Amino acid sequence: MTTCRSVVQKFCFGFAVAGMAASLTCSVVAQSADRPYGNPADTFQPGIAGFTFHKKTLDETLEVMKKVDVHYLCIKDFHLSLNSTDEQIQAFHEKCAKYDVKGYGCGPIYMGSEDAARKAFEYAKRCGVKILVGVPYEDQIVDGKKQRVGSRKLLEYIDKLVKEFDIKYAIHNHGPDMPLLFPTADNAYEMIKDLDPRVGLCMDIGHQLRFNYDPVESFRKYHDRVFDLHLKNVTDNSKKGGAIQLPRGKINLVEMVKVLREFKYSGICSLEYERDFNDNLEGVAECIGYFRGLMDATR
Amino acid sequence: MTTCRSVVQKFCFGFAVAGMAASLTCSVVAQSADRPYGNPADTFQPGIAGFTFHKKTLDETLEVMKKVDVHYLCIKDFHLSLNSTDEQIQAFHEKCAKYDVKGYGCGPIYMGSEDAARKAFEYAKRCGVKILVGVPYEDQIVDGKKQRVGSRKLLEYIDKLVKEFDIKYAIHNHGPDMPLLFPTADNAYEMIKDLDPRVGLCMDIGHQLRFNYDPVESFRKYHDRVFDLHLKNVTDNSKKGGAIQLPRGKINLVEMVKVLREFKYSGICSLEYERDFNDNLEGVAECIGYFRGLMDATR
Repeated sequence: MTTCRSVVQKFCFGFAVAGMAASLTCSVVAQSADRPYGNPADTFQPGIAGFTFHKKTLDETLEVMKKVDVHYLCIKDFHLSLNSTDEQIQAFHEKCAKYDVKGYGCGPIYMGSEDAARKAFEYAKRCGVKILVGVPYEDQIVDGKKQRVGSRKLLEYIDKLVKEFDIKYAIHNHGPDMPLLFPTADNAYEMIKDLDPRVGLCMDIGHQLRFNYDPVESFRKYHDRVFDLHLKNVTDNSKKGGAIQLPRGKINLVEMVKVLREFKYSGICSLEYERDFNDNLEGVAECIGYFRGLMDATR
Repeated sequence: MTTCRSVVQKFCFGFAVAGMAASLTCSVVAQSADRPYGNPADTFQPGIAGFTFHKKTLDETLEVMKKVDVHYLCIKDFHLSLNSTDEQIQAFHEKCAKYDVKGYGCGPIYMGSEDAARKAFEYAKRCGVKILVGVPYEDQIVDGKKQRVGSRKLLEYIDKLVKEFDIKYAIHNHGPDMPLLFPTADNAYEMIKDLDPRVGLCMDIGHQLRFNYDPVESFRKYHDRVFDLHLKNVTDNSKKGGAIQLPRGKINLVEMVKVLREFKYSGICSLEYERDFNDNLEGVAECIGYFRGLMDATR
């Protein structure tokens, strides 16, 4: 008869703030303990991928997140630069905590060299997150012009970094628009399957469908290496598919949530809502509401 | 893998406009044929109770409805006065049709006399709707002051009007704030159960819970007389329960949607979102998204 989300949130707000203070001291947040929001029966929660609000300030982003009752943010560089000082990072987290929001990961961060990769890991460590969403590439001349190409060589260096930092690395797939730069989760998986199990995927389910790959089946295949998920819907299972509110696209999100439950996905489902960037509050709210409906009805 | 809502909508937009023109000629819209939106497997759809936008103009209301992809509006008098001319009513419907919105019912309309009741039915007929949501009362001196009290006597006159107009009459329950004026659906049902089967209920599930009555069980009891439903959630199962976004309140809306499906409820679930009236787009969007999630996950 009742839902306990509000009760859990009330209880956990103090906890979250306390946890944040701890994380700023040791620079590392224990992942298992810092997912206190929502129904205790859920292994995953909705979040926001920073890119959704790339035209908003951090304050505006947090205001929206408060309105829609979402507590996990994947930090993008326009909200917290890679060059931030420790004091700036602390101020960022303190501001988030005021809105009951936790920056749970960083990225996607594009990295084209070993130096850039190390810098990204150092940033993630200083941010106190355990997930770094990344796009490791090398420049190559393809069809007569310099292009970014997904780099196995750089991944072999990243394999060492995940061991050194104990931070998970999640490759973001880009769909048919960037056929050389991890177009699919499948392509990324092929390049990381023999690496450290902390090298995995941030599965963008929209780009999977835009490549005409069923994201439900993709998750089923690669679930043990999916550390983050870009939640979205798209209008078509082809390159022409554009962003649309979650209830209105071609991805069957009921089945998506069911497969997340089946495999007890323990990451965040971060909404990346890529339309109406200047005025997306309604769209974000509809999407988050929809996702919560699916979660509640499949529990 | 795909949802067919957008396809159905595209197909039916023309239909809706054509149907509207027909309704203005004959003043009656065939109910079974005019629910063309959404998944064909659904017997009910989300709508908007006009009161949600009582601080908005009709244009603003329709803009929001377009944004959240909702196509049914229960018409309130502040958007279309009971004294409207036929031309004004036609202009109202034409404006709605531009936004792909159908005014499917009128009300709630308070009526304290036979004349007022007849005027409301004539208005509903001129509006071309088949559902009139009403609050039939008589003034009585209670506790030393004049108060509105739910009127069986007036309902006996309304019993004649539903026969004369062939328009369904749905009593709105008001919860613990108005203990004399249909506080519960149960109270209303007791007063209409021996009347024409076209006299029934607009079940406000929030007010039911605020009276500590489980709206799921209430619907189960009275489903054959529920013609309209005010969709909402509330923070408590007592008088102190206030409006809250659908995912965050005490009504178990998963079970609510399941019971609507069980009895093949064939009305509209009209969102009556009673907070942040000056700035409720986010709340409305979150609510509608949530309801669609529940619908999709329970189909």
